[in-house]
Amino acid sequence: MCFSPKLFPEILIKENFIVVLVDILRATTTICTAFENGVQAIIPVATIEEAKQLKEQGFLVASEQDGKKLDFADFGNSSFSFTRERVEGKTLVYCTTNGTRALEMAKHSEKIVIGAFINISALTQWLNEKDKNVVILCSGWKKKFCIEDTLFAGALSSRLLDSGKFTTNCDSAHASIDLWNVAKADILQYIEKAAHSHRLKKLGLDDVIPYSFTADQTKVVPVFDGTKIKNEELNPA
Amino acid sequence: MCFSPKLFPEILIKENFIVVLVDILRATTTICTAFENGVQAIIPVATIEEAKQLKEQGFLVASEQDGKKLDFADFGNSSFSFTRERVEGKTLVYCTTNGTRALEMAKHSEKIVIGAFINISALTQWLNEKDKNVVILCSGWKKKFCIEDTLFAGALSSRLLDSGKFTTNCDSAHASIDLWNVAKADILQYIEKAAHSHRLKKLGLDDVIPYSFTADQTKVVPVFDGTKIKNEELNPA
Repeated sequence: MCFSPKLFPEILIKENFIVVLVDILRATTTICTAFENGVQAIIPVATIEEAKQLKEQGFLVASEQDGKKLDFADFGNSSFSFTRERVEGKTLVYCTTNGTRALEMAKHSEKIVIGAFINISALTQWLNEKDKNVVILCSGWKKKFCIEDTLFAGALSSRLLDSGKFTTNCDSAHASIDLWNVAKADILQYIEKAAHSHRLKKLGLDDVIPYSFTADQTKVVPVFDGTKIKNEELNPA
Repeated sequence: MCFSPKLFPEILIKENFIVVLVDILRATTTICTAFENGVQAIIPVATIEEAKQLKEQGFLVASEQDGKKLDFADFGNSSFSFTRERVEGKTLVYCTTNGTRALEMAKHSEKIVIGAFINISALTQWLNEKDKNVVILCSGWKKKFCIEDTLFAGALSSRLLDSGKFTTNCDSAHASIDLWNVAKADILQYIEKAAHSHRLKKLGLDDVIPYSFTADQTKVVPVFDGTKIKNEELNPA
């Protein structure tokens, strides 16, 4: 488990691992929402320049900086704007401050899967069906530790360890599980102290918080193949 | 608060701040022990080569790698070897895998002070007497998050916030306080799950663990002036 993309190069597993990318507020929650609403594929790009170029080529583009939608873009990163009417059957280009940077870091891993509270059970099932090591990579905020991604990492780690298929000797994983156990009884109250909650309130973008912390609103499992993110169907339970 | 030297460049405070350097297992615990036992000054060096050169110049040298004492050195980093008989009145050269790297990172700050459970009350008093921002910099293990430094950061953050002189909006600080509150009732039991406990046990170096987590065994406040670490006397309470 990795609290920030900056710590990712220190991860010792060199092969045969899946990265779970986490950016609860908001890229990974938003990506799951878009797939729930029928988006066909998402092309992540690392820079605003690339996003602009692809916009000029006719793509629908989501792009934000410090949480705010950029003028040229069709979407910011509010999950609520990725409605079925706007995204069904489409291919979107997605550029976000935090999430795409983390994706860039993780691209040498075997597979990258998108994790959020809203798809946590589907994701857990999917990971349990693979025979792979798992690295949970939190995007953090401006490359720093952030509490909301850590809580998700703790929730997911708990579920994976409870399945009996995984073990860990990672201090970050143990710490995130303990924090999740402190927070889980009233996560919205707990998350009040997160610095990013304050930032979103200031921007008037905090409407998405309860949604972002509600488990299992979708069964999508978005997987990045090196070029595009696509939904992988779960095996029937 | 910073979980790893790798995250330190992301810290936004640019001036007027003190760094509390933390490496509970073991550099900062050991440095406090050496001052408690009368060492006059400690010269931290970043590389084994520098340590060797200074050894040849006649200095007493402490040097370890991955927790083990190096052959040419007089000391490893076990607190118990820095006895009064061996260190009183002396100037030591100190090179450690984790601690010195963090010191290197922090050297542009105004002042660096050495923090450990064994000097936590003295350190808290000293910080309360300054009118400065404080960054708690955990050394971590091989640049990664480690639980033992984080618990100390939580304990110290709690004390500083309780004093009423400090506030924080740092997610890492809040998380470390919550972890400290989970752990503090039985810290030795809690620390059992720390990866570094297992490493020390394998090396037969775990004898120092109970000592390293016992508060207030000394009133020293070792401060780095850019060249040497020296003890700063506390004002009488």
